[in-house]
Amino acid sequence: MTGDDRLLPILRRVDQLREATQPWRRAGETIGLVPTMGALHAGHMALVARATAECDRAVATIFVNPKQFDRKEDLSRYPRDEARDARLLAENRCDLLFAPGVDQMYPQGFAATVGITGVSDVLEGLYRPGHFDGVTTVVCKLLLQSLPDRAYFGEKDYQQLTVVKQMVRDLDIPVDIVPVATVREPDGLALASRNVHLTPAQRQVAPLLHRVMTEIAEELSDGQTPAALLLPEGQQRLGSAGFTKIDYLALHAADTLEPLQHVDRPARLFAAAWLGKTRLIDNIAVDPR
Amino acid sequence: MTGDDRLLPILRRVDQLREATQPWRRAGETIGLVPTMGALHAGHMALVARATAECDRAVATIFVNPKQFDRKEDLSRYPRDEARDARLLAENRCDLLFAPGVDQMYPQGFAATVGITGVSDVLEGLYRPGHFDGVTTVVCKLLLQSLPDRAYFGEKDYQQLTVVKQMVRDLDIPVDIVPVATVREPDGLALASRNVHLTPAQRQVAPLLHRVMTEIAEELSDGQTPAALLLPEGQQRLGSAGFTKIDYLALHAADTLEPLQHVDRPARLFAAAWLGKTRLIDNIAVDPR
Repeated sequence: MTGDDRLLPILRRVDQLREATQPWRRAGETIGLVPTMGALHAGHMALVARATAECDRAVATIFVNPKQFDRKEDLSRYPRDEARDARLLAENRCDLLFAPGVDQMYPQGFAATVGITGVSDVLEGLYRPGHFDGVTTVVCKLLLQSLPDRAYFGEKDYQQLTVVKQMVRDLDIPVDIVPVATVREPDGLALASRNVHLTPAQRQVAPLLHRVMTEIAEELSDGQTPAALLLPEGQQRLGSAGFTKIDYLALHAADTLEPLQHVDRPARLFAAAWLGKTRLIDNIAVDPR
Repeated sequence: MTGDDRLLPILRRVDQLREATQPWRRAGETIGLVPTMGALHAGHMALVARATAECDRAVATIFVNPKQFDRKEDLSRYPRDEARDARLLAENRCDLLFAPGVDQMYPQGFAATVGITGVSDVLEGLYRPGHFDGVTTVVCKLLLQSLPDRAYFGEKDYQQLTVVKQMVRDLDIPVDIVPVATVREPDGLALASRNVHLTPAQRQVAPLLHRVMTEIAEELSDGQTPAALLLPEGQQRLGSAGFTKIDYLALHAADTLEPLQHVDRPARLFAAAWLGKTRLIDNIAVDPR
């Protein structure tokens, strides 16, 4: 299927989005939302596939949200190619692309923040101040603009998924948040838009993040050796493998994201590590044996 | 009309509220929401009257929201009489009362805050730390729980109305916020649930707040004498009249709530003043001549 002949409406304004989705809702059709920052890859397409399979209509959004970037440089070099993204979405049977500008999302005098404490305070929250406030504020807006039945989030950003679930529960946003498993390259590297920044040499090193994490997770899952012993060793291995800086390699409860010493309940191993100017994050499940 | 024979369902849980309102929405009926903290009076009934006049269905909520009380004493002595409130709402042709408990609104592990900067930072925001975060968080929840077409707020709490309007705009909450004029006693005192706390002597003094404000507003509206000259004089008059403390008497722009010196655009005169343990607030329009 080439899909080149499919029509994908691209809307820029909230009123247009509402006008387009209201007839669907009135007809009793379900809507699946896939919020993205563009630079789409097979990981995003896994979200779209779930949305099209489970809902009558699939809406994707592309908005590179300045509020969730803690570093200006990261925002300015974030990859963007809307024409290519739109082709991919059309080929994958998306019904609509909502791609608003910054002025549409944050008009003059914008003054709101949706904040979540607890699950947003650990891991990325410690390394990217303000990041999750930016995420929850924009996701809240996107959910209320499109009023989907379900919204799809990748487990690649597991903490984000957890924070969004907490927000939806606490604010009574009428939507089901659906987690979708991380999509990986054959060598284990988690797909990420920022991977395009990796040099060929860095690309060689990158899959070692997942490999080391998998090995450590295996050792942790017996519940015997505490995280405090295994994780520093893992950090050392990542350093030797060529990662220039390791922000964290950490074991947390899968639901509350509390730090864990032993895998005595469903857990998750999280890592953030740098290759030059590019920061990779990943996480995998660690279940008690 | 006695209304005693009307049936007013009282619901305690969000899922019940959704179950009750969804058929209305599906049938294309419009829903008007009147969020209250109970202790209902004619001011609330003016909101209900607008809701029943403009919408097919009127839903009232009663929730004494602990998050918006900055003083524990104020929370504990806040007047409550649900049976009486329910009778009043039934008589006034309300379709439904949603009266959740604190556990339903803020379940174990609740972690969300909706915050608005700017319009919430002046006036009450300076005297009641955290108050507006509590208001916006609960109003956001109530709006998303009931998904009304319109929600009605009294101008008595003009700053609250402004903060809620800002939140609804910024977060794209799909609802129209409808302001309703303050209802007053014949002597000018703005109706307020807390007025029941006034002793007969204090009740005599209370209407002087509105009287002095009206006189000051008259003087301000010619745009000549600056607020900095007229307002201290007004404060002095309130003090002489018997108010035991004046938190503020201040002129602000009607839309942005910026402080004003001259009434060169639609403005609002705000006051907060104490009679013993009871704090009264009021505000009136001051339009340029």
